Amino acid sequence: GVTAGLGVEARRPWACRLLGLFGFLVCDSCVFFSQIINNYLERTQGEAVDKACSSGMHFRDSKRKVDYVLAYHYRNRLARHLPGRAPQERPGSPGPEVIELGPLDALEEEKRLQREEYERNLVEAGLEIEKDPENKSQGLSFVRIHAPWQVLSREAEILKIKMPTKKVYEITEEGGILKKLNEIWCKLTEPLQPQVPQQENTNMKSIGTLIANNVYDAAYPLHDLLYQEWARYGVFYKFQPIDLIRKYFGEKIGLYFAWLGLYTEFLIPSSVVGIIVFLYGCITIESDIPSKEMCDQRNAFTMCPLCDKFCDYWNLSSACATARASHLFDNPATVFFSVFMAVWATMFLEQWKRLQMRLSYSWDLTGLEEEEFLCVLSQDEEKLTWSDRMPGYATNFGLILFMIMLTFSAVFGVIVYRITTAAALSFSTKETTRSNVRVTVTATAVIINLVVILILDEIYGAVAKWLTEIEVPKTEKTFEERLILKAFLLKFVNSYAPIFYVAFFKGRFVGRPGHYVYVFDGYRMEECAPGGCLMELCIQLSIIMLGKQLIQNNLFEIGIPKLKKLFRKLKDERTEPKETDTNQSKDPQQWDLDYSLEPFTGLTPEYMEMIIQFGFVTLFVASFPLAPLFALLNNIIEVRLDAKKFVTELRRPDTVRAKDIGIWYNILSGIGKFSVIINAFVIAVTSDFIPRLMYQYAYSQNGTMHGFINHTLSYFNVSHLKAGTQPENSPFAHDVLFCRFKDYREPPWSQNQYEFSKQYWAVLSARLAFVILFQNLVMFLSVLVDWMIPDIPKDISEQIKREKAVLVDFFLKEEHEKLKLIESFIARDQQKHKSETKAGPCGDARELGRHAGILLAHAASVVGPQPSLFLQTPCGAWGIERALLL
Amino acid sequence: GVTAGLGVEARRPWACRLLGLFGFLVCDSCVFFSQIINNYLERTQGEAVDKACSSGMHFRDSKRKVDYVLAYHYRNRLARHLPGRAPQERPGSPGPEVIELGPLDALEEEKRLQREEYERNLVEAGLEIEKDPENKSQGLSFVRIHAPWQVLSREAEILKIKMPTKKVYEITEEGGILKKLNEIWCKLTEPLQPQVPQQENTNMKSIGTLIANNVYDAAYPLHDLLYQEWARYGVFYKFQPIDLIRKYFGEKIGLYFAWLGLYTEFLIPSSVVGIIVFLYGCITIESDIPSKEMCDQRNAFTMCPLCDKFCDYWNLSSACATARASHLFDNPATVFFSVFMAVWATMFLEQWKRLQMRLSYSWDLTGLEEEEFLCVLSQDEEKLTWSDRMPGYATNFGLILFMIMLTFSAVFGVIVYRITTAAALSFSTKETTRSNVRVTVTATAVIINLVVILILDEIYGAVAKWLTEIEVPKTEKTFEERLILKAFLLKFVNSYAPIFYVAFFKGRFVGRPGHYVYVFDGYRMEECAPGGCLMELCIQLSIIMLGKQLIQNNLFEIGIPKLKKLFRKLKDERTEPKETDTNQSKDPQQWDLDYSLEPFTGLTPEYMEMIIQFGFVTLFVASFPLAPLFALLNNIIEVRLDAKKFVTELRRPDTVRAKDIGIWYNILSGIGKFSVIINAFVIAVTSDFIPRLMYQYAYSQNGTMHGFINHTLSYFNVSHLKAGTQPENSPFAHDVLFCRFKDYREPPWSQNQYEFSKQYWAVLSARLAFVILFQNLVMFLSVLVDWMIPDIPKDISEQIKREKAVLVDFFLKEEHEKLKLIESFIARDQQKHKSETKAGPCGDARELGRHAGILLAHAASVVGPQPSLFLQTPCGAWGIERALLL
Repeated sequence: GVTAGLGVEARRPWACRLLGLFGFLVCDSCVFFSQIINNYLERTQGEAVDKACSSGMHFRDSKRKVDYVLAYHYRNRLARHLPGRAPQERPGSPGPEVIELGPLDALEEEKRLQREEYERNLVEAGLEIEKDPENKSQGLSFVRIHAPWQVLSREAEILKIKMPTKKVYEITEEGGILKKLNEIWCKLTEPLQPQVPQQENTNMKSIGTLIANNVYDAAYPLHDLLYQEWARYGVFYKFQPIDLIRKYFGEKIGLYFAWLGLYTEFLIPSSVVGIIVFLYGCITIESDIPSKEMCDQRNAFTMCPLCDKFCDYWNLSSACATARASHLFDNPATVFFSVFMAVWATMFLEQWKRLQMRLSYSWDLTGLEEEEFLCVLSQDEEKLTWSDRMPGYATNFGLILFMIMLTFSAVFGVIVYRITTAAALSFSTKETTRSNVRVTVTATAVIINLVVILILDEIYGAVAKWLTEIEVPKTEKTFEERLILKAFLLKFVNSYAPIFYVAFFKGRFVGRPGHYVYVFDGYRMEECAPGGCLMELCIQLSIIMLGKQLIQNNLFEIGIPKLKKLFRKLKDERTEPKETDTNQSKDPQQWDLDYSLEPFTGLTPEYMEMIIQFGFVTLFVASFPLAPLFALLNNIIEVRLDAKKFVTELRRPDTVRAKDIGIWYNILSGIGKFSVIINAFVIAVTSDFIPRLMYQYAYSQNGTMHGFINHTLSYFNVSHLKAGTQPENSPFAHDVLFCRFKDYREPPWSQNQYEFSKQYWAVLSARLAFVILFQNLVMFLSVLVDWMIPDIPKDISEQIKREKAVLVDFFLKEEHEKLKLIESFIARDQQKHKSETKAGPCGDARELGRHAGILLAHAASVVGPQPSLFLQTPCGAWGIERALLL
Repeated sequence: GVTAGLGVEARRPWACRLLGLFGFLVCDSCVFFSQIINNYLERTQGEAVDKACSSGMHFRDSKRKVDYVLAYHYRNRLARHLPGRAPQERPGSPGPEVIELGPLDALEEEKRLQREEYERNLVEAGLEIEKDPENKSQGLSFVRIHAPWQVLSREAEILKIKMPTKKVYEITEEGGILKKLNEIWCKLTEPLQPQVPQQENTNMKSIGTLIANNVYDAAYPLHDLLYQEWARYGVFYKFQPIDLIRKYFGEKIGLYFAWLGLYTEFLIPSSVVGIIVFLYGCITIESDIPSKEMCDQRNAFTMCPLCDKFCDYWNLSSACATARASHLFDNPATVFFSVFMAVWATMFLEQWKRLQMRLSYSWDLTGLEEEEFLCVLSQDEEKLTWSDRMPGYATNFGLILFMIMLTFSAVFGVIVYRITTAAALSFSTKETTRSNVRVTVTATAVIINLVVILILDEIYGAVAKWLTEIEVPKTEKTFEERLILKAFLLKFVNSYAPIFYVAFFKGRFVGRPGHYVYVFDGYRMEECAPGGCLMELCIQLSIIMLGKQLIQNNLFEIGIPKLKKLFRKLKDERTEPKETDTNQSKDPQQWDLDYSLEPFTGLTPEYMEMIIQFGFVTLFVASFPLAPLFALLNNIIEVRLDAKKFVTELRRPDTVRAKDIGIWYNILSGIGKFSVIINAFVIAVTSDFIPRLMYQYAYSQNGTMHGFINHTLSYFNVSHLKAGTQPENSPFAHDVLFCRFKDYREPPWSQNQYEFSKQYWAVLSARLAFVILFQNLVMFLSVLVDWMIPDIPKDISEQIKREKAVLVDFFLKEEHEKLKLIESFIARDQQKHKSETKAGPCGDARELGRHAGILLAHAASVVGPQPSLFLQTPCGAWGIERALLL
């Protein structure tokens, strides 16, 4: 929350009004009750839990379970006056009078009063409380809360948490081949299924009991089970026990893991296709004529020097290795792969919608409405006018712009670093240094880039949070959404700016020999390696993606929490002197243990990490077909890592109900759309795909690729080099009349020398036509896929229909009973009129009451998805009402 | 429906199972009951209607209203034996024995039995029936049905038709400037508001009564009111009384008129902008340098002949008029206008979503679920396997392909007509004929196109219906959707094929002088007029659009029904001899009058017409900025025309509830998306916008447009003309060395003569770059608009929230009462245990019963949007159940 402390009354949320009287309870998370209720649902109806209660999960009476724990530090004035310790509470012991209060004490007293009021409210709301005696001068104290069944039921009604009260029916299996296939699939995936008890209601819905009768046993065995079957690296190949996760952590976290699971599964086919595309590149490398031509020593292409003065003319065949490596990623299969990945992204999103719907149904969230779980962060918000908000928005806009400029400056800084270092190293007298210039510069630059990204990422996270706070959003949901959008925007720009530079800008503003573009005096804009920028883009991508995943996700995620834990432990030990040791260490209660864990701070970082990865997988897939594979490898670990973190490293998070993954879906779909145009441009502009195609079908003499390299190189008359930029100390400067450079320009002997040639414009047209074609084709395919896959799985919609049918069947029965009731009422009424006081009227009333009761019970037992139709219109209520008002 | 007659049992629909026992009632429309219920809701609670019941809208007892009429023709065997007429039914009169049955009689008898069974079912379902005596040898008979209140209530429960039971609360007005603006707006639009009673619940919601208490009085005054304030051309400037329309015709038709109204309103701003763009063209025509240059007689551009042999060289200045006209539509303002229209389309769709939501809310459709109104058309459907369906799908695919090919052939046929006629007319010896070739050919060709479109449109409508029938779709909704999709596809291709040809293909496959492309021997492909194809596109568009609207929409829509009505009247008069006259003409009942009207056949033609128009307005708006204006003028008439048709020309249609406009929305949104790319291409490829821009900024010597015409014309050496294609009888053939033609090609003196020049490729690149830029910019803008305008209007979401709050308030009160009840129960229970049999236990039971009754009544009175929470969870029901099972 924004405001700290327990000053609750001041910011009682609007949405909490939904929880009515209990608003004051839930202001910090709005989920207090649903948390407790969810805990409760985990227990079996009978008190079988009691057997497991030796580990300090209960009140001192060992019966009432601790549902929630509030912890606080206290400083006790009284302790100064009381000698030693007082292990038992002594009720009625006359406390000494308060004589003097320091300013610190006054604050402490204020806090204490607030706590007391809060706890009084809790008790008034029907909750039961157990407190540790505050018998030390200062220390950590716990308020343990138990919510009785009545309170839970009441709140469950308000929150509309449904019980499994659906009528028994078998879901008929699909027959024929589909069934067989399904069976085979089940058998095949059997070893991959986690060893958790199957939910019984996957095929049957149980009726007859009104009280949650869950299959799983309370929290403790679950903890082990989750650890054994989910949160270990050893089980990486198994499916996740999503229902179990949901039961333990709530729907929001359940959805995250379900999403992560689906994403990881979807990465498998794309990895396979990616590997095939890569292998295709490997296999065809020997038959690739352009790279062969480049490597052929006999084709002596004398290239123009890469820098002024100190660089010499060089032979294109020296760039042979890069050219061959480029072919691995720059081949026709890549075009297919990027179309494939665009459709893949759409399919993934569609499948996610379906899975979400399926989970929604099986978790009974179909009726859940988002609004009810909103929590207003600030009451003042409604009073804020446009002019009050203006500074906030302006700051937001300004700071985001500034941050983006900062990212760009960082990228530009690295470019300058590369240019200057390259130049500096070229001056070097050592031969080895000079020959390795490119490798050294590229490697160090990418690492600098990576470090900058990692640092800025952390800064941007904090900035986004601060910016959202000064915006004073109305509800927690708005807060979260805005925070995510801001953080995403900043982190996206941060992660991808250097990659966009390499893909679309590097080497495009070099100018031409004799007319170079200079950044500073004497420093030329950097060029791409002779094999094209694609290779460099690929290196950049792989290093940033892998480095980010390894360092940020894994190192940070495991290391930082551990460090924090250690740090806090040390701090606690320092602030709390030895005196507590004897008291606590002998009997460490569960709440003490949990307190030492890191608090849960939300799913945003987890999602963000995955979304940025999704960007790597889709946006530049044309230049790096192995990205899905790396993502897959990372995610297999990631799932278990996150699981482990949630189970063992963090305090058990508050249960939050959620119907969907919210704004993340929009971001995913946005990235998917953006990736289409980016891939179109990567293929058309960055890769050599179009020039090759053009050469083969338009310019080649014999329809083969022979002569392609020659065709892409323009001529330059070395006598046109500006004075002072000619290579010094060139051994063959005198033999060179023309040097070559990669561009489509008119030759020196043409009328318009060095202007863009007709080929340049023709190739450009082809490139742009390809972009239009690719974009529209892929968009059309996406729309088609979107349209062909229904959002709601057929079996789920069938089930919903069936449930409705059951409901109507019930309703008709109920209608009949009601009619009978009315008839009997009328009959008795007439009888009563006849024999006025003969028989006691109470028999009547009683029977009718019983009748109505059965009716109600009947009603209550079937009301699954859409409860109690029969109060919707006058006539239903009318029947009962008349019967009862007898 | 597909199957005719009353053979209902054979095809009892699945969806109708939802209506349980009453399935047999509703198989034909699935809306039978909701129809009756809607009728019923229109009446006031009290029987105030009775005053107006003299006009034969009631049963013979003048009390029970006729809710539905079934009409049938009968042939009565008995009548042959009975003499004369039998105006009163004589119960128990001994009918003569059946002796012989002809084959026709057997069929008749079968029908009669089916009718009897059906009517028996109706009576069993609780409906009341009144029949005319079948006292003639053959004739028309009516079964009049009355649905009593009980039956309606029961069905209302099943259909979940809600009653206005919401609690009173004021919707607080927005303060400050907005309020003022709103007031001003209200005053300004006051004369535009239809003079119908305002719904009282626009600002207040009424509670306390459980029974629909509608403001409007039954059907009859409504009929007049609708005619007076809606269905007259005189009120064209007024808003439509949508709520009234919905009440009378049901939600589906209400939504159509709401949609049509919004669309027409949205056409106003686009018409205004369109006129401004057109005016801009008119004003700048004098300052347009290219058209000035073209008209300048001093610039003697000798153009190559337009046809072989018979055409002469001609001077470009003779095409001056076309060039000037082209400028009207081909200017930079058009580019702005097409961006504007793309955003306009998105805005329109967004606003429609909002309006739909608003109507949904005020019509209480928010909880309505589509599925419940489905009707299965064929029971066999589920048994049909893939192989059974294959022929149907194959036929579909084949026939649709064939139809599309047919359209293309028609277009091609017209092209051939144009080419041959133009050639034939050129041979003409008459000077006047030859000079008017182009005008004559274009005008006749467009008219032929229009006629072909009109004819094929009718054929395609029938074909689409037949194709959908052989597909055997499962539900009526699927049937409708597939029919619409097919009909739309065919009609879309039909309407737009000639336009697409002119926009993107005409004049592009001409070849070049000396190397022309020939369709047949001696017939060259047609070229565009010298001013470019845009002018021709504009003519084509305006004629097809206006012609289609005038002839098809208005003439067909008014004329055909009138003709049909006349025809049927004649037929009825012929088949029914004079004998009936004396019986019926003296007392024409409402059902007789209604029977003579045309039956309602669905909204599809109305929507289709508008959607095709929407295509004209958006798809080619870049070439015809006046399209929105023409559409607006048409629609102002169209609204009242449709209204008049619905009120006076058609039988009152079955009320169909619908939440949205269904698949039409998807089609609209698809057209909107498609229009972006089409407009991009029209501007880039068809218009001269890009070449002008390129010339001005890249090729022009002084940055002005001077010399543009010269730049776009290539040179051709007349000596390179093939033998036999030179102009015969040319007066100045000897003076001409070079002729010019419109293309970017190398001049004859260049090395690669007549190849595409560098300019060609550069301009092509620019065109394609513009397409990419335009498409992505507009798509981005659309996404932005979509994202910025929330789908649910803020006030509606506020109201929904408020209603929920009211519900929770109620719930908490109820909770308190329940607690009290339980407390009193426990207290009494204890008392009872103490004094076992002293007081009668019946007092207890009675009081508890009363308590529970109050509770239920209380519950029933508030359950507005989400009724009866308190049966959702065990504890609510538990309390009452325990209380009742005492």
